Amino acid sequence: MKEIAVLADILREKKPLVHHITNYVTVNDCANITLAIGASPIMADALEEAAEIAAIASSLVLNMGTLNARTIPAMLAAGKAANSAGVPIVFDPVGAGASRLRNDTAAQITREVNLAVVRGNISEVRFLAGVASQTKGVDASQMDLENTADAKQTAKAVAKKLHCVVAITGKVDIISDGTQTVCIENGHQLLASLTGTGCMCTSLIGAFCGAAPGQPLEAAAAALLTMGIAGETAFERAGRLGTGSFRAALHDAVSQMCTKYIRERAKLYEA
Amino acid sequence: MKEIAVLADILREKKPLVHHITNYVTVNDCANITLAIGASPIMADALEEAAEIAAIASSLVLNMGTLNARTIPAMLAAGKAANSAGVPIVFDPVGAGASRLRNDTAAQITREVNLAVVRGNISEVRFLAGVASQTKGVDASQMDLENTADAKQTAKAVAKKLHCVVAITGKVDIISDGTQTVCIENGHQLLASLTGTGCMCTSLIGAFCGAAPGQPLEAAAAALLTMGIAGETAFERAGRLGTGSFRAALHDAVSQMCTKYIRERAKLYEA
Amino acid sequence: MKEIAVLADILREKKPLVHHITNYVTVNDCANITLAIGASPIMADALEEAAEIAAIASSLVLNMGTLNARTIPAMLAAGKAANSAGVPIVFDPVGAGASRLRNDTAAQITREVNLAVVRGNISEVRFLAGVASQTKGVDASQMDLENTADAKQTAKAVAKKLHCVVAITGKVDIISDGTQTVCIENGHQLLASLTGTGCMCTSLIGAFCGAAPGQPLEAAAAALLTMGIAGETAFERAGRLGTGSFRAALHDAVSQMCTKYIRERAKLYEA
Repeated sequence: MKEIAVLADILREKKPLVHHITNYVTVNDCANITLAIGASPIMADALEEAAEIAAIASSLVLNMGTLNARTIPAMLAAGKAANSAGVPIVFDPVGAGASRLRNDTAAQITREVNLAVVRGNISEVRFLAGVASQTKGVDASQMDLENTADAKQTAKAVAKKLHCVVAITGKVDIISDGTQTVCIENGHQLLASLTGTGCMCTSLIGAFCGAAPGQPLEAAAAALLTMGIAGETAFERAGRLGTGSFRAALHDAVSQMCTKYIRERAKLYEA
Repeated sequence: MKEIAVLADILREKKPLVHHITNYVTVNDCANITLAIGASPIMADALEEAAEIAAIASSLVLNMGTLNARTIPAMLAAGKAANSAGVPIVFDPVGAGASRLRNDTAAQITREVNLAVVRGNISEVRFLAGVASQTKGVDASQMDLENTADAKQTAKAVAKKLHCVVAITGKVDIISDGTQTVCIENGHQLLASLTGTGCMCTSLIGAFCGAAPGQPLEAAAAALLTMGIAGETAFERAGRLGTGSFRAALHDAVSQMCTKYIRERAKLYEA
Repeated sequence: MKEIAVLADILREKKPLVHHITNYVTVNDCANITLAIGASPIMADALEEAAEIAAIASSLVLNMGTLNARTIPAMLAAGKAANSAGVPIVFDPVGAGASRLRNDTAAQITREVNLAVVRGNISEVRFLAGVASQTKGVDASQMDLENTADAKQTAKAVAKKLHCVVAITGKVDIISDGTQTVCIENGHQLLASLTGTGCMCTSLIGAFCGAAPGQPLEAAAAALLTMGIAGETAFERAGRLGTGSFRAALHDAVSQMCTKYIRERAKLYEA
């Protein structure tokens, strides 16, 4: 694996355009975190323009947080256009396992679109692995979280199955391309008390993939290091105040993230 | 009425899943406030999944802030599924009285769905009472606000008419189940300078109803105490700085709300 | 041109109702900034109610940040209803030049609706002028930004073509009604690191147009002075902390903006 932290400075230099088709709950956070790390977001989910914009973007983020009959075809069209144009795609299967609509859509996207990276919590990735999960809602189930022994195996198996990088975020983040697997132990539990921290991880992966299109494993690791270290920094600065101040401090920390700071604080090791 | 403040600690213990079909203006605030009080939000408004998710949720919030032809049937389907499954429903008739679409939808939801709690401003609840209101937009009209003499009667009448708890938020919050009526005098006027504080009250009621499904009067009171006390605390900490800092401090205060603090500061009395 | 700063205090007195049909990325920021400056926002994008609400509003904001087949007809219907009722309309052609859907919609709106003010970045306004632009995404292209020599001419030409006021925001803001042109040199570059600062400018123009319907040039200038001065103030207070704190400070500053403060800090001159 190539050096990862260096990608942060490269990203700010390249300022990639990250096309998102995402949910309306956390879309503002995703746009702001994309800007904070130095990329440029564009959100466009109409079928009439999704493929056109995906083809000129540096990367494409597909997030199924609030699916509907209008946006699913747009995701598929954008995904296919991105594939044709060689634009890397990051997929966030929010709530996979929680409803038939989400299950069917996750299955269709993974079948019809070639993905660079999948990012989810353990319950969502277990669903993609074809393993029965305990998901109820969009947060990982407690049972799945406690059963982390097999999380590395799950990441590896899904990476092989989908021919892409798989990133499972949680107390320890796990990233695998099916051959190589790395773990990240940065982060803070208060991140789970904010909506959209998972979605923001996915957007950051999109931003790094746009800056380093041939290095999805490194891009995913750089993104999760960014969020994990920013979470720690935000907790140090504002965690005692509550979630509102922590949220502002999280955006602060991402907006000041750089190669040097990642090198100082990264807790990454090969599994 | 049973003890109310205790519900705050119970809620954090139970971590109920609160399904929202809500507007895209304040949805992020609603998700974050739901997390801040210790519940888990899921936003899902597609007809293809709304009923399925409502049935497994701890409570359902229907908020008509930005209605459209796609979400209205989803609200009705989710409402009926929640009724069948015994999941309590909280309804926020945003802007009732301001357009025919909103009037018709509010009428249809109150007719076809059994509600646990309705939460609105005085203009919106007057509309549900069948009383001509002065609403223009989504904020309560000045004339309605000044005519508070009959707000208690309006709450009581609508509670009897709809067989549910009615909560009218304003300078003084009024909550009635048709028999018993309580008033809450916590809060701060700066709350009216932020979008979504009404919606967040509704989401908090949803969270408390999920934790105490058989106690809608107590759940509504606990939620409005939470928001009122958090508003006071946020004003003390950050009000002089402006609305941006006040907003962060409001989320901070809700994220640290607990039974003990509510007991210390509650200004609740029976009407 | 009449005195501009005075409009800030007039706005807080009048509390105009600003109807928005806007994107789901920055809609919450737009609602909060509208409240912060003293107006009342209503977001309603369903065809079934858009015209009805536009007709009773003080002003209408049409922002094409996330267009779709459902909202475009609502924009046109609301625009025509506003025109019939004499309600001023502010148009934000987000991403014009970036896709055929956006290009066609911008063309249709400018053809079928009489606008009071158009607000965009230089790339978007160049598109409206019929000049080939380098837009890629929703941010102004670097080439367009550097080629500011003709920005004043572009503003003037589009103002004459569309018979309205045109405001181009950037390092220097340019506002023209085709005859008179003014420049504003307030602002801070950190504003470009937040999503929605352009959209918020448009919402502020909507708020000021609602308070001073016959003075679109003055309204646009007051709005851009507000955002520019608030950006400077926010940077002084919180800029070193990062974008999350800067964002809260920006809302703080707008919520405390007044005639006196604008007079003290305005850098406005006639071109």
